[in-house]
Amino acid sequence: MREIYLDNSATTRCFPEVAQLISDILLERYGNPSSLHHKGVEAEQELRKAKQILAQILKCNASNLYFTSCGTESDNLAIIGAARANARRGRHLITTKIEHPAVLETMKYLEGEGYEITYLPVDENGLVSPQQAADAVREDTILVSVMHTNNEIGALEPVSEIGAAIKAKNPKVLFHVDAVQGFGKAVIHPKKMNIDLLAASGHKIHAPKGIGLLYVGDNVKINNIIYGGGQQGGMRSGTENVAGIAGMALAAKLLYDHLDEELDKLYAMKETFIQRVSAMPGMRINGLTGRESAPHVISLSVEGVRAEVLLHALEDKGIFVSSGSACSSNRPHISATLSAIGTPDKLLDSTIRISTSVMNTQEDMDAAAAALEELVPLLRRYTRH
Amino acid sequence: MREIYLDNSATTRCFPEVAQLISDILLERYGNPSSLHHKGVEAEQELRKAKQILAQILKCNASNLYFTSCGTESDNLAIIGAARANARRGRHLITTKIEHPAVLETMKYLEGEGYEITYLPVDENGLVSPQQAADAVREDTILVSVMHTNNEIGALEPVSEIGAAIKAKNPKVLFHVDAVQGFGKAVIHPKKMNIDLLAASGHKIHAPKGIGLLYVGDNVKINNIIYGGGQQGGMRSGTENVAGIAGMALAAKLLYDHLDEELDKLYAMKETFIQRVSAMPGMRINGLTGRESAPHVISLSVEGVRAEVLLHALEDKGIFVSSGSACSSNRPHISATLSAIGTPDKLLDSTIRISTSVMNTQEDMDAAAAALEELVPLLRRYTRH
Repeated sequence: MREIYLDNSATTRCFPEVAQLISDILLERYGNPSSLHHKGVEAEQELRKAKQILAQILKCNASNLYFTSCGTESDNLAIIGAARANARRGRHLITTKIEHPAVLETMKYLEGEGYEITYLPVDENGLVSPQQAADAVREDTILVSVMHTNNEIGALEPVSEIGAAIKAKNPKVLFHVDAVQGFGKAVIHPKKMNIDLLAASGHKIHAPKGIGLLYVGDNVKINNIIYGGGQQGGMRSGTENVAGIAGMALAAKLLYDHLDEELDKLYAMKETFIQRVSAMPGMRINGLTGRESAPHVISLSVEGVRAEVLLHALEDKGIFVSSGSACSSNRPHISATLSAIGTPDKLLDSTIRISTSVMNTQEDMDAAAAALEELVPLLRRYTRH
Repeated sequence: MREIYLDNSATTRCFPEVAQLISDILLERYGNPSSLHHKGVEAEQELRKAKQILAQILKCNASNLYFTSCGTESDNLAIIGAARANARRGRHLITTKIEHPAVLETMKYLEGEGYEITYLPVDENGLVSPQQAADAVREDTILVSVMHTNNEIGALEPVSEIGAAIKAKNPKVLFHVDAVQGFGKAVIHPKKMNIDLLAASGHKIHAPKGIGLLYVGDNVKINNIIYGGGQQGGMRSGTENVAGIAGMALAAKLLYDHLDEELDKLYAMKETFIQRVSAMPGMRINGLTGRESAPHVISLSVEGVRAEVLLHALEDKGIFVSSGSACSSNRPHISATLSAIGTPDKLLDSTIRISTSVMNTQEDMDAAAAALEELVPLLRRYTRH
C-alpha cells in the first residue's frame, strides 16, 4: 500500500540530498569544530557555510545565528534567556493563548520563578490583535512572544504589525517569534519585521530531528541556559551538531530557492482539497483559508466522528494525519487553540489536522479527500460519538 | 596523504553501520514518536529498541534512560535538575577540580544561584580520594559529581568506591558521574556502582554529534530544565532525535559486544606507543598507565616544544592530535587538570593529547611515534619555546 504522509506539521521526511550530506559529514568531515587541526577546520567550515546560507535566507548576519537541539530548546533559550538577562528591567512577559507548549510551558516555569505572564486572546480565526498586544505592554514588560504560524489551524499571525505596535508602546520590549511552523514556508526577515528573537526547527523542513535554530538580533541580550565548554560564543555549550546544522541549512536552501513555486503548489493543493471536503455535509474548516492562512495546514472538524477513530480509519488506507496538535498527540487533551477560537464543544474531539509538504502531490490530496468521502458517512453510521 | 586521526576524545568518526541506520531512519522511519499512526509507532519502536540495547549495557531498566542533545546537556540536566529538585534538603554540592567544563561551568552557575560548591583536589595522577569525598559530605549536601574518566589525562576515577563512601556518610546524597569519556570503553553498571545519575555522549563513541544519554536511578528526583510538549515523561521536552538515539544505541552495541577484545587492542597500542616515546629524552607521560588508566587517552608533555607547534607539525604529516582538552581547544587556556596534578609550569604549554579508538591500528601508533621521533628534535632545535 502506498503511504500518503499528511502529518508534516508533526515532522517531515528528510530530503534525500540532506540525508546524503549528513552521511558524508558523519563519515568524512566528522571533526570537532573546536579542534585546531584540519579535521576541526573542515567541520568549522561546514558550520560557517550553514550559517551563510541561513543568514541569506533570514537577511541577517551569520553572527545573529545560534544552533540548539530543537525548536523547543530555541524557544526556551529565547524566553528564559531574555527573562534572566533582563530581570532588572522588569518581570512581565506577554504571550498568546494558542502558543505551542514549548512557549506556554516555559512561561509557566517562569511564573513559578516569580515572573508575571499575560496571555493574549485570539479572534475566531486564531489571530492576535496588534492593538491588544500593544495595550498589554507595560513599563516592566521585557518580552512578547507570538508564534509565526499556528501549528493546529495554520493561522498566520500579523507578527510584523505586532512587533511594530509593541515597540511603539515600549521600545525596550523584546519580541520573540516561534517560527517552527512558518520557517521554510514563508519569507521571514526578522530585522525588517521588528523581530528580536526567532526560533526554527530542522525536522519540520525535511532536515533531521535534533537540530534547532535561534536568531538573536544585534544588541539583544539573553543569557545562556546550558553551561559548559563555551561553544557558539558561550550562547550554547556542547559540541556543535555539525551534520544536523549543515543538513538544516541545505534543507532550508532547497525550500527557499523555489519558495514561490512551492507555495503556489501547496496553496493549490489546499484549495482543491478544501473545496472537495467542504461539499460534504457536517464538515468545518477551522481558521482562514487561501493566502491568508498557512499553505500547509488544514484543520478539519468532522461532525459526529471522533478524531482518533477517523485517524485510524485513514491509517488503514495508508493515509497519515494527526488528531490534536503536532507534538504530543499521544497525550490526549483538549486543544487550547481550538478552544481559544471558539470551536463548538462537540467538535473539539472531532478535529483532525492534515498537513502537507513539498513532497506531497495533488494525487495525495485527492486520495485523502476520496477516503474522507468514503469513510465519514460509514463512521457516522457505525460508530457512536 | 593517509589521515591518522588520534583525537578521538574530542570526537569520533561515525561507524558506517550507524551512518547507514541513520540514513534509513531519516528517509524511511521518519515519523514523530508522538504521532498516533503507523509512522509514529515505527519511530516509537526505534526509541524502544534503542533503550533496550542501552539498558542491557548499563544493566538498568529502559525507564531509567533519557535522551538529551549531548553530554553537556546531560550533565546540566543531572546537576541543575538535582539541585532544583532537592533545594529544600540543602544547597551544598561537591565536585572535583578536574571535571569537564560541562560540570564545572554548571556548578559555577549554581554558585551564582546561591548554592555552595566544594571542589575536591586530586593526587598527582588525577585521582580523587573516596575518603576526602566522604569527608566533604555534610548534612545539607545534595549531590556529588565525579567524572568516570578524565578527558585530558585518562585518569580512571574510583567512582564505585566514591559512591559507597559518600553514601555511607549521608545516604540521601545523590551521586552523578560524567561518563562521557568512559562510556563505550568500560563496563559501567550504575546501580551496582552506587551511581544515581550518569551522563554519556554519542559522538565520543562513533555515533553522531547532537545526542546524549542520561541515566536516572530509581527514586532519584530531578527537575527538567527544558519545558514544552512533555516528551520523555516530561523529563526532556522536544521531539526525540530518533535517528541520533538509534545511532547511539547501535554504536554502543557495536562497542560493548566485543569490549574485551577492543580493550586488549587499545591497551596494547597505548603501551607500545608509550614505551617508544618514553625512550626519547624530555618526554613525560601524565597520569597512570596500563590498566589503571583509560585505554584510549595518552597525555604527553614534550619538554621544550610548544604544544600548538607540535600539533601543526604532526598535522602536516596527516596525524591529528589535540593540545589541551577536548571540547574548546580553540579557546587557549591553561589546563585545570594538568595544574591540579602538579604538572611543572614549563610543561603546561607543552602537552599534547593522543586519543585512540577502535578505528585506529598499531600502524597508526607506530606512525605517530615515528613522527614524534623525527619532529621533536627538529622543533627543539628550530623553534623557541
